[in-house]
This record gives sequence, C-alpha cells and structure tokens, in this order.
Amino acid sequence: MSRLDSFIRRLEAQRACLNQAARLIATVPGPILEFGLGNGRTYDHLRAIMADREIWVFERTIAPHPDCMPPEDRLILGDFRDTVDDALQRIGTTAAFAHLDVGSGFVQETRALAAFLAPRVDRLMSEGGLVASDQPLSAPGWDPVPIKGVEPRRYHLYRVTRRARR
Amino acid sequence: MSRLDSFIRRLEAQRACLNQAARLIATVPGPILEFGLGNGRTYDHLRAIMADREIWVFERTIAPHPDCMPPEDRLILGDFRDTVDDALQRIGTTAAFAHLDVGSGFVQETRALAAFLAPRVDRLMSEGGLVASDQPLSAPGWDPVPIKGVEPRRYHLYRVTRRARR
Repeated sequence: MSRLDSFIRRLEAQRACLNQAARLIATVPGPILEFGLGNGRTYDHLRAIMADREIWVFERTIAPHPDCMPPEDRLILGDFRDTVDDALQRIGTTAAFAHLDVGSGFVQETRALAAFLAPRVDRLMSEGGLVASDQPLSAPGWDPVPIKGVEPRRYHLYRVTRRARR
Repeated sequence: MSRLDSFIRRLEAQRACLNQAARLIATVPGPILEFGLGNGRTYDHLRAIMADREIWVFERTIAPHPDCMPPEDRLILGDFRDTVDDALQRIGTTAAFAHLDVGSGFVQETRALAAFLAPRVDRLMSEGGLVASDQPLSAPGWDPVPIKGVEPRRYHLYRVTRRARR
C-alpha cells in the first residue's frame, strides 16, 4: 500500500467518522468544537453536515483556505494546552461534538498531547456527546463507537457517557 | 460538496489515472517522469505500481516525507522552466510516462506553466507514451484518454501519438 493509498484511506475514514457523528448527535444539545483548523477542509465539512450548529475552532496559527475562514468570534487562538481549560467559560455551554485532528507526525509528542487533551475536552462535552479523533483517546466514561465501513483504529469515535456516576 | 469531499474525489481520480496509466504503458519503453514531488505521496505510488521503471523527479525544493526521498541521481533540481529543456540529454532516453502535478492554486500562473510545459514534455516522451496531469494540457498529437470511473476533467490523461506525421 502506497502513501497515496493510505492517505486516501485515512481521509475516507475521517469523513465516514464525521458523517456518522453528525447523525449521532442529532438529539444532543450544544455547539461543535474543532481542535486544529489546518487548511480548513474538515471545518468546511463540519459546516456542511452540522449546518445548524455553532462551530468553535481551536488553533494556534490560522491559515486556512480563504473560503474556510471561521468567524473571528468563534476562534479560540493559541496552543490547545493554554486555551482548553478556559474554553467552557468562553463558549458558555457544553458541546455536542468535538473533533481532534492533532497528530503532528511526532509520535511521542502527539501521544502526550492526546493524553493531555482527553480529560480536558471531557469537561467541555455534553452528556451523550461525541468525540472524534485521529488519535486514540481515553477518558473515564468515554465509550468507543465503531465507525461503519471503517476498520478499527483507522479513526476514532467515542461517546461521552456516565456523567451521573461521577 | 465540502472541500473535504472534493479533495478525496481529486485524490481518488488521481490514483485511478495513475493506475490506468501503469497498465497502458506496459509495452512502451522508457523511464517515468514526475513533475512536482511535494510530500512524495504520488512518487511513492508510482514507485509501487511502476516498480520496474526508473523514476526521474523534477522539483525546485525537495522536502518529501523521509520515506519518499528519490535517489539523488534521479533528481532534476530547479524550476521546471529551467530544467525541462535539457532533461532529455540528462535522462538519455525518452519516457514512457510523465505525471505533471503542477497546480499552485493561482489560476493564471498554473495555466501559463501548463502551456509552457506541454510541448517541452512532449519532446521527452516515447511514441505511445502517456502523460497524466492535474491540469488540462494540449500538444500536437496528444489524444485524451478517458479515465475509467472518473468524470471528465477531474484529472487528465493523454497518449502521445502521431510521431510519424511530423
């Protein structure tokens, strides 16, 4: 399998995951959180499939395709590590869906960032909300959701549950 | 259609085009020319599907994924505009296949580059060779080849013919 093949497979898995999440959050209240804007491709996709939701974007350096620029008042600028803890106050309500596309190509660094973010993103989520990620994540009460048509571990989807038990 | 959708569609079209070209050049002699290396994804794909061919890479700035670095003695470094005219001398023989992934996002500039390159790439090609491109190209004796499973104009494939008439 070439790197072109695996890249296409990853993007198809990502899209299947986002589309499935869009269906699953239909009854969950709250906005959408996008961690990592990049060129804005997935932001544009979320905007299309979750058209009735506010989308908040976390990013250090904003440089998307011009068509994919989020509104300024929905941007949380800075390193995720610095901005995630105060985000709930800024947003004002818990989220229905979060997408974390945070892999940098550096394995150790990415793993550390995922471990740092998971419990903090958890605090931003509504009960029953969904979290999708390019990285495996783990937090108390997060149940993995299989992604239809996608092999396990190619992309990751979790439902945030068991709030009542905490 | 979101930008994620159209990006996936473009990559799938590109892959279908390259795979079809690999079958069509089976009886055409010569090496492969890759104009534009980028991160090396399509180079890696060409290396996989045209494993028995030399691949020559034209690129200004070499910065692929480390796994996709071409051998130094198959690199033609510099602006295509400066290197294409002397390439035949360097390579030593005409090519079976050329892939031009040269779109920069700037429409006028890309169009000018494609118009500049087509007749020059033509001189590098074996009779019956194939040229694939992200841009529409035009040169005397180039016949468009439909790409199976891909809508017209999503990616471009030409057969270099009619050498005898010139």
